[in-house]
Amino acid sequence: MSRHVIIRSQRRISEDISTGLAEAGSSTVHEADGRRGSLGPALTPILAGKAIAGSAVTVSCHPGDNLMIHAAVEQVRPGDIVVVTTTSPSTDGMFGDLLATSLRARGAIGVILDAGVRDVAGLREMGFPVWARAVSTQGTVKASPGSVNVPIVVGGQVIHPGDAVVADDDGVVVVPHGRAAAVLEAARRRTATEESKRERLAAGELGLDMYDLRPLLARLGVEYVDES
Amino acid sequence: MSRHVIIRSQRRISEDISTGLAEAGSSTVHEADGRRGSLGPALTPILAGKAIAGSAVTVSCHPGDNLMIHAAVEQVRPGDIVVVTTTSPSTDGMFGDLLATSLRARGAIGVILDAGVRDVAGLREMGFPVWARAVSTQGTVKASPGSVNVPIVVGGQVIHPGDAVVADDDGVVVVPHGRAAAVLEAARRRTATEESKRERLAAGELGLDMYDLRPLLARLGVEYVDES
Amino acid sequence: MSRHVIIRSQRRISEDISTGLAEAGSSTVHEADGRRGSLGPALTPILAGKAIAGSAVTVSCHPGDNLMIHAAVEQVRPGDIVVVTTTSPSTDGMFGDLLATSLRARGAIGVILDAGVRDVAGLREMGFPVWARAVSTQGTVKASPGSVNVPIVVGGQVIHPGDAVVADDDGVVVVPHGRAAAVLEAARRRTATEESKRERLAAGELGLDMYDLRPLLARLGVEYVDES
Amino acid sequence: MSRHVIIRSQRRISEDISTGLAEAGSSTVHEADGRRGSLGPALTPILAGKAIAGSAVTVSCHPGDNLMIHAAVEQVRPGDIVVVTTTSPSTDGMFGDLLATSLRARGAIGVILDAGVRDVAGLREMGFPVWARAVSTQGTVKASPGSVNVPIVVGGQVIHPGDAVVADDDGVVVVPHGRAAAVLEAARRRTATEESKRERLAAGELGLDMYDLRPLLARLGVEYVDES
Amino acid sequence: MSRHVIIRSQRRISEDISTGLAEAGSSTVHEADGRRGSLGPALTPILAGKAIAGSAVTVSCHPGDNLMIHAAVEQVRPGDIVVVTTTSPSTDGMFGDLLATSLRARGAIGVILDAGVRDVAGLREMGFPVWARAVSTQGTVKASPGSVNVPIVVGGQVIHPGDAVVADDDGVVVVPHGRAAAVLEAARRRTATEESKRERLAAGELGLDMYDLRPLLARLGVEYVDES
Amino acid sequence: MSRHVIIRSQRRISEDISTGLAEAGSSTVHEADGRRGSLGPALTPILAGKAIAGSAVTVSCHPGDNLMIHAAVEQVRPGDIVVVTTTSPSTDGMFGDLLATSLRARGAIGVILDAGVRDVAGLREMGFPVWARAVSTQGTVKASPGSVNVPIVVGGQVIHPGDAVVADDDGVVVVPHGRAAAVLEAARRRTATEESKRERLAAGELGLDMYDLRPLLARLGVEYVDES
Repeated sequence: MSRHVIIRSQRRISEDISTGLAEAGSSTVHEADGRRGSLGPALTPILAGKAIAGSAVTVSCHPGDNLMIHAAVEQVRPGDIVVVTTTSPSTDGMFGDLLATSLRARGAIGVILDAGVRDVAGLREMGFPVWARAVSTQGTVKASPGSVNVPIVVGGQVIHPGDAVVADDDGVVVVPHGRAAAVLEAARRRTATEESKRERLAAGELGLDMYDLRPLLARLGVEYVDES
Repeated sequence: MSRHVIIRSQRRISEDISTGLAEAGSSTVHEADGRRGSLGPALTPILAGKAIAGSAVTVSCHPGDNLMIHAAVEQVRPGDIVVVTTTSPSTDGMFGDLLATSLRARGAIGVILDAGVRDVAGLREMGFPVWARAVSTQGTVKASPGSVNVPIVVGGQVIHPGDAVVADDDGVVVVPHGRAAAVLEAARRRTATEESKRERLAAGELGLDMYDLRPLLARLGVEYVDES
Repeated sequence: MSRHVIIRSQRRISEDISTGLAEAGSSTVHEADGRRGSLGPALTPILAGKAIAGSAVTVSCHPGDNLMIHAAVEQVRPGDIVVVTTTSPSTDGMFGDLLATSLRARGAIGVILDAGVRDVAGLREMGFPVWARAVSTQGTVKASPGSVNVPIVVGGQVIHPGDAVVADDDGVVVVPHGRAAAVLEAARRRTATEESKRERLAAGELGLDMYDLRPLLARLGVEYVDES
Repeated sequence: MSRHVIIRSQRRISEDISTGLAEAGSSTVHEADGRRGSLGPALTPILAGKAIAGSAVTVSCHPGDNLMIHAAVEQVRPGDIVVVTTTSPSTDGMFGDLLATSLRARGAIGVILDAGVRDVAGLREMGFPVWARAVSTQGTVKASPGSVNVPIVVGGQVIHPGDAVVADDDGVVVVPHGRAAAVLEAARRRTATEESKRERLAAGELGLDMYDLRPLLARLGVEYVDES
Repeated sequence: MSRHVIIRSQRRISEDISTGLAEAGSSTVHEADGRRGSLGPALTPILAGKAIAGSAVTVSCHPGDNLMIHAAVEQVRPGDIVVVTTTSPSTDGMFGDLLATSLRARGAIGVILDAGVRDVAGLREMGFPVWARAVSTQGTVKASPGSVNVPIVVGGQVIHPGDAVVADDDGVVVVPHGRAAAVLEAARRRTATEESKRERLAAGELGLDMYDLRPLLARLGVEYVDES
Repeated sequence: MSRHVIIRSQRRISEDISTGLAEAGSSTVHEADGRRGSLGPALTPILAGKAIAGSAVTVSCHPGDNLMIHAAVEQVRPGDIVVVTTTSPSTDGMFGDLLATSLRARGAIGVILDAGVRDVAGLREMGFPVWARAVSTQGTVKASPGSVNVPIVVGGQVIHPGDAVVADDDGVVVVPHGRAAAVLEAARRRTATEESKRERLAAGELGLDMYDLRPLLARLGVEYVDES
C-alpha cells in the first residue's frame, strides 16, 4: 500500500444517531462515553449557537497545503463532517468559503480544522459551521501529498473515518463508530436525569447532599473552620 | 489546622460598593486602585456585555476535579462571585449549567474560573455570566480534596474571601476587602473627570496638550523629523 | 538622527485604493499580493463584521507604556489606521475609549494593536474597530520614549508608514505602499473569477476537476484505495 | 470490559531491533518510516547524549495523579520503555528517582512523560534517561483510576503497547510494532547512503547538484537575480 | 503609605534552616509542606547542579525596567535570594553579570527572575546561580517605579520578604517564613524514609505493595485483563 | 521580478568587524546599538559556550520544506551565518548534520533557524553551532518555492542579506550592515567601561550610587519604609 492514500470509506453512522448526538450535545456525549473523546479547548466555533453531529471524513495535509481537502470533497456524502489535520502544527487559513460551497454541495454539514480558517464573514453569511484552531488570512499551496480517510489525531484523540463527531459551542467530541449507538443511549439517559437534577438544584438543594459528597469530604480530611 | 479546609467566611463587601464598582467597570477600578489587581487577559467572558461586582468566595481544586466547587456552593450568599482555581494549571470543563443553577439558587451572580467551562449554550440561555481560561468539553472527577475560602492566586493576583471582584468585557479585577470603599470613591472621581476629557478629545484637543506631554517627549529626547 | 523620532510622514494611499482594498477583504488581498503580508492569527477583531483599509501610521512603544500613541494622534489624517507595537511582547491594555475618541476626532478609522486593548464595551458602543492581541484591564504608564512613523514589525511583517493596511474578520494584512494599486487590481480580478468558481462549485463541480488536480495527485503518488 | 484496565500485554520488539533502532537514531528512523511517528519538539531529554530504543509500556493517568505509573511497573520487562500521558494536559512532576529506581529494578531502560519530571539531579546521577514536557517540583496524588497498556496519544501520535519507541537528543519517535523490522532495515539503508552523501558534501559538492534540485527550482519559478 | 515602597525588612530564616532546606531539595520541601509552594515549570536554572536556599528579598518591577533591582541590592544581606517579578509578563533580560557582581558583593547567593536573564556565559563563569523564565538579550530601562520587599506573586505563589526560597535543578519552591522550621523537620523525616524506600524498590519490591495500592485500584474499579 | 528569487548578494561585513562583534557578545552589541536588534528569547543555542558573528545569508522557506536551504548553500561565503525562517510558524526539523557538513564546506560558521533543528548529537560532535526555535525529529519535504537573500523577519527583527548577526549563549542579535562598524565601536567603549563598573560593584559600591539613581527613585515617589 502506498504511503499516501485516499480511502473510499463506506462507514457512516445513521441519521438517527447523528440527530440524537447533536441534540445531546458534545459535553453530555463526552460524559456518556466515560469522559472520553474530548478534542479539548483549542478548537473553537466561528459561528455561535450551532450544534451538529455526523460521520467523520478525515483528512491529513502537509502544513500550509490544502490539496487534500480538495481530494476529500469527492468522498463526502450528505451528513458528513470533514475533519482536517496537518502533519505538523499549522494555523494557516486552509479553508474558506469556496471550499465550504463545494462541501455543502456534496452534503457536508460542517468542518473541524486542526488548523486555520478564513473567509469568516462569508462562512457566517452562509451559515456553514466551522470549528478551528485559528482564524488566519495566511493562504496555502497545493503541492504536497497527504491522505483522506486514514486515522488521524486531533486534540489528542484518534479519529477514524466514519466515527461520530459532535460539535457545538462547547467544542468537539469524537465517538468511535462502534460505540456511537450505545453512547447515544447513555447520553439520553443522562439528559433525562439531568433535568430532574436541575430542578432540585434550582429549588435550593445542594450538590453536597444530592450527590452525597459530605462523607467523601470527611474521608478526604477536609475540615470546616469558622473564620478566625 | 488541617491542610484542606472550608472556611465559613463572613467578610462581604456591601451591596452599595458592589453596585458602584460594577458601574465603574473593571479597567477604571484597576486604575483607581493604582493600577493593581488586574487578572490579565487569559480570563475572558462567555457572555458579552455583562458587568458584575461582588464578594469573592474562593475555591482551590485539584486539577481535573470539581469536588470543591460543590462544597463552595453552601458558603455562597446573595451577591457573591465564586472564584475557582486549580493547584496546577488546567483547562478542563469544571463548571457547567447544573452548577450554575445551584449557584444562582444561592444568590451567586457569576463565576470566575482559572480553568475551563462547558455547557456554554445553556449558560448563555440562563444569562449566567462566567469568565474562564477556556471552554472545554473535558469533564472532571470528584476525588481529591481542596479548600474553600482560603487565599488563592489567579492571574498573578492574590484573592481573599470577601475581596471585591469586578468583571466585565475587559476581564476581571480584584480589590482587597479593606480598600474597596476607597477605591470606589477614587473610581467615581476618575469616571467624572473622564467624561470631560472625552469631550475635549472629541472636540479635537490632543492628549499631548491635555496631559501636557510635549515637555516629557522633549526631556526623553524624542525628536520630530520631517520625512526625508 | 536621534534614536527616538516622530516622523511627519506624508505617504498615504488614495481613498479609492482604500475603499477597493476594504471591499476585496484581507484574505483576497493577501492572495492577490502573492500570499504576502498576513499578520497571522494572533490579532483578532473586538468588533465582528467590520472591514476597513487605510494608510498606516506606525507606533513603537516601550512595553507597558502608551506615551507614543498620544504622540501619534497628532500625525493622523482622515482615513488613517494606527498600528502599534511594543519593543518587547506585551498584552497590557494600552488603548481604550479615550484614545479612540481622540483618534476618531482626527479621522482615524481603526487601530491595530500588537498588544492589549481595554474599554471594549465602550469601543463597541462607539463602533470604533480595533484588532488586538489581547483584551486586558492592565493599565500602562507614560514614562519611556518610542517612535512614530518608523518601520515596525507586527506578526512577522514589516509595516512602513503609508503602507496599506486591510483588516476585517479574517485578521490583518499589510501591502507595501508602492504595490497597493497593483495589488488592488489583482484582488479585483481575483474576486471576479471567484464568483464564477463559487457558482460551479455550488453546482456540484469538484475542485479536483475545476483546478485540474487529479494529475497532480497521481504525480505525487497518492493512491485511491477501496476500504478493506 | 471495564473503563479502566491494566492489560497484561505480551507484545515486545526483539532486542536486535531495539539495538538497531537506537543506533539509527530517532530522526533517521522517522525518515525511514516515511516521515511518520515524530512526537514533536515538546518532549525533551533531561540527560544529553542518551540514545535508547525499546518496547512501549503505555500508561494513561488522571492529571496530577501518578497512581497508574505504580501499576505499570509490574507490567515492565527488561528493555521496556514506559510512556506516560494524562487525560488532560499536565506538567506536574509525576515521576522522580524513586519510581526510576523501581523501574530500573524491573529492567526498564527509560521513560517518556507527556507531563513533568522531578528529582532531576538524582535521575542524572542514576543515569536514568527521561524525556519530558517539563521539569516541575509540583507533586501528584494517588486518587483517580487510569489504564496501563491501552493505546495512548502523545505528541499527536498513537502509541500501542509493544510499539517501538526510539528516543535520543532529537526527541522521541514511535514505530508501530508490525513495521519495526522493516523500518529498521530502511533506516540501515538510509544510514549507509548518508555516509557517502556526507563525504560528497564535505568535499564541496552542493545539495542542489547531488539531489538534482536545480530543475525543480526552475519548474517552481524561482529566479536567480544579481543584487541591484 | 506610598504606592511604591522599599521596605527595610528584618525577617530572615536562620542559616541552619537554609542549609537544611537546600540539602533536602526543592521537591522534597514541596512535599514536606503538604505539596505547596511550587513555582511550577516555567522557571529553569541557567546553571545545572546548583542547590540553594535562603531568605527572599522581593522585587516588583515595571515590565522592561530593572530600576528596582538596583534598589533591592541595598536591602540584601548575606544568604539572601533576590526574587524579581514584573507587573505584567516580561521576558526581557533584566539581570546580568554586573548586577550579579553587585549582589554577590552584598552576600546574595542567587536570583529568581520571573522574567529574562542575560550575560549567561559570564554568570556561568562566576558560578552565580539564576533561575529565570527566559534567556534574552533584550535590555531594559530605568524609568518606572516599583517596590522592594512587598509581597509578590511568582508562578502562582505568594512570596513575602523573609520567606524561605529553595531552588535547584527541579525548579523553585517557597515556604512561608513561619512554617520554614517545621517544614525542614518534615523534609528531614521524609528524606530519611525515602532512603529505605529506595532500597526496597531497588531490591524489586513493587510500589503497589510497598504503598498498599492494590486495594485502591480495586476500589476504583481498575481491572486486570489479559491481552486478547 | 519573480515572486521567488535567489539573490546573489555581495554585501558582507568585514572579518575584523565580525571578530569584534563576537568578542563583544550579543547583549553588549544590542545595548551598543541603542537596545535594538534582539531576536528575543525563542531562539536558543544547541551548543553552549559558542559565540559567533558574521554576515547574514537569509532564507525564506515554506513551512515544512527545506528546499531553499539547499539553494542558499551556494550563496554562502566563508564567515557567513545562514538565517532561515518560514512563511508560517513551524518547528519542523529543517536542518541537520548533512546540511551542516555542506555549509561548513562552504565556510559558513553557524545557522540561525526560526524553525526546528535535528541531528543534534551529530551537530554537537561537529561543533557546528545552531540557534533554533525547537529541536524536532519531524522531517521536511522539498516541494515549494521560497527565496534566498531577501529581507526576512525573525523574532520581530528585519534581517537583510549582509547584516551582521551576533549569536552566543544569550541568543541572537542583528545589526544592519550600515551600522555594524559604528556599533562595534560603541560596543568596545561599553565593554571598556563595564570592566571598571564591575570592579566598583565587586568592591561593594551600590548601583544606586554609581548610576546616581537615588534622585530618580525620589522623583518617582518611591518611599523607604521600615518594616512594621
